Amino acid sequence: MQQVLTIETRGQALYEFTGDAKNFVKKQEVETGLLTLFVRHTSCSLLIQENADPEVQVDMKEFFSRLVPSSDHPSMSWITHTYEGPDDMPAHIKSALLPVSLSIPIINGSLGLGTWQGIYLFEHRNMPHRRNVILHIL
Amino acid sequence: MQQVLTIETRGQALYEFTGDAKNFVKKQEVETGLLTLFVRHTSCSLLIQENADPEVQVDMKEFFSRLVPSSDHPSMSWITHTYEGPDDMPAHIKSALLPVSLSIPIINGSLGLGTWQGIYLFEHRNMPHRRNVILHIL
Amino acid sequence: MQQVLTIETRGQALYEFTGDAKNFVKKQEVETGLLTLFVRHTSCSLLIQENADPEVQVDMKEFFSRLVPSSDHPSMSWITHTYEGPDDMPAHIKSALLPVSLSIPIINGSLGLGTWQGIYLFEHRNMPHRRNVILHIL
Repeated sequence: MQQVLTIETRGQALYEFTGDAKNFVKKQEVETGLLTLFVRHTSCSLLIQENADPEVQVDMKEFFSRLVPSSDHPSMSWITHTYEGPDDMPAHIKSALLPVSLSIPIINGSLGLGTWQGIYLFEHRNMPHRRNVILHIL
Repeated sequence: MQQVLTIETRGQALYEFTGDAKNFVKKQEVETGLLTLFVRHTSCSLLIQENADPEVQVDMKEFFSRLVPSSDHPSMSWITHTYEGPDDMPAHIKSALLPVSLSIPIINGSLGLGTWQGIYLFEHRNMPHRRNVILHIL
Repeated sequence: MQQVLTIETRGQALYEFTGDAKNFVKKQEVETGLLTLFVRHTSCSLLIQENADPEVQVDMKEFFSRLVPSSDHPSMSWITHTYEGPDDMPAHIKSALLPVSLSIPIINGSLGLGTWQGIYLFEHRNMPHRRNVILHIL
């Protein structure tokens, strides 16, 4: 049971798709199993994070921008892979620091997420992109 | 085959539960399979780390406290999500940097951990918490 | 369906084994399923990253060397776990920041990797090591 979900992004931000993942699980009518998410890119990430206060997402994005600044920032002058733009190598680094795959147990027909857990696509590039996430149930 | 393990935490530290995971696998009498661990929170993490020298855990905790200081630290004045306390947003950030799910193959009825690998719940909050980890075998 | 892949490393670098993973999947003749990779060590990591431009690997290694310097670097004087050498505790920290397990769906008999995604063993120690990665298909 597999599906490829396409998410359109418009710049660096977190894009929630908890609803799509829940719908996929419901449609498959699986009572117990394992949902695996896999993102087919190296400049964006998956992330499970709090989905209550939107400030969490703002701070999350800010933290990673400070930890891995744009490659035209003086502190990043050592970066060699620059020809795809100053947001490219930082995007690869962020995609190493954050999950490319996630596994979530299915319990009683529902995703085993905690009360405050939402599932996000974290876009690390500035330009709009079409991102593919594989949803897979065993 | 699923179980929810509850771990009581008393402040920021690593809490080992390798034994609980091994017991769960043994009880299910699975010869070959996959154990998935999933933590149902956004302010603590799972971690597989060396379980020989306790200094590793001390240094690990220290590294993450320095990488993501408390939000009342001058370097963190940009944080907006502060009303749940100065350890809250840093906890969310650490939970993004460290695993929320882990998959460990089961070989010949045992977890395929390396000799020095232990499984930990890494608590990022200061106050005591009850943390739930889903153990799931396929 | 399981196999242990041994990778010989010669110092800190990324060692690609996408071909080995693809061959393992092909040999098992699985149409649809899930490949799990698990590294049995706490001083090296798995990583899915761009495999087009080799500069990406150079910059990736450099970023992590700067984020987690050798423990004989003045900024790391707080490290206590030093008796296995100045690259040891930093290796444990990098292995916490980067994946120990990865799950990749298998679609139509092939790994569901994106066009530019390669699979790497990221060695964090200076001396040569033999590293074991479990390949597991469900």
